[in-house]
Amino acid sequence: MINTLLDAVKWNDKGLVCAVVQDRRTLRVLMVAWMNTEALRQTVATGFAHYYSRSRQRQWMKGEESGHTQKVYELRLDCDGDALVLLVEQQGGIACHTGHASCFYRIYRNNDWISTDPVIKSENEIYTQSECVQKHK
Amino acid sequence: MINTLLDAVKWNDKGLVCAVVQDRRTLRVLMVAWMNTEALRQTVATGFAHYYSRSRQRQWMKGEESGHTQKVYELRLDCDGDALVLLVEQQGGIACHTGHASCFYRIYRNNDWISTDPVIKSENEIYTQSECVQKHK
Repeated sequence: MINTLLDAVKWNDKGLVCAVVQDRRTLRVLMVAWMNTEALRQTVATGFAHYYSRSRQRQWMKGEESGHTQKVYELRLDCDGDALVLLVEQQGGIACHTGHASCFYRIYRNNDWISTDPVIKSENEIYTQSECVQKHK
Repeated sequence: MINTLLDAVKWNDKGLVCAVVQDRRTLRVLMVAWMNTEALRQTVATGFAHYYSRSRQRQWMKGEESGHTQKVYELRLDCDGDALVLLVEQQGGIACHTGHASCFYRIYRNNDWISTDPVIKSENEIYTQSECVQKHK
């Protein structure tokens, strides 16, 4: 059976596709995560971003513990089908498990990686201690 | 020896890292490509984006055949070091080997993937026929 949503995607050898997540207003790149078929299906079905955690080896909804959900406004696919772009509204203004607005808070400048962004909320505030593990791998 | 640029990156099992490329003015995501250590080193050394082609299994400079080079204005790394963001000036306004401005010219709407962007230049105009192969894998 042809599934238009899933069949256009070129899943990698682990059954995953790379997803770039942008804030729909600022267009800042918030994070890069991975989706399996179920995560993509759930994202479209619910309108909220779902990913596949490579470390926890399971599909999850972004923000399910932190409350930092991502409402999806646009979903795009690249020319050869192996990358997605999501335009989202980031609940709480925090995408990163470290409490930064974006996971990309380090810039390469003067031969060093420099943190340019403040921590909006500490990890301990975002998660209870036992939950404070990598959130989007 | 510590190499600040390269050691902060968490290279995957194939020695690659994912690079998200944004237009520095519009902030549109133009493409997603992959870098090996040499591509990242060359990108920083020259100020022009270099990638690793998975299909051709070699490092290359974006635009080396098409002329559609990418001058890099900002280089960012994510929280766990396995993704980069490049803010670039896209020569010719065309990032995609298909002749679209962005590789992400398809949007998911009404249960289908729809092309939203025009082809600015045909592949035959961009490349000679023998060169007309996937350009950034």
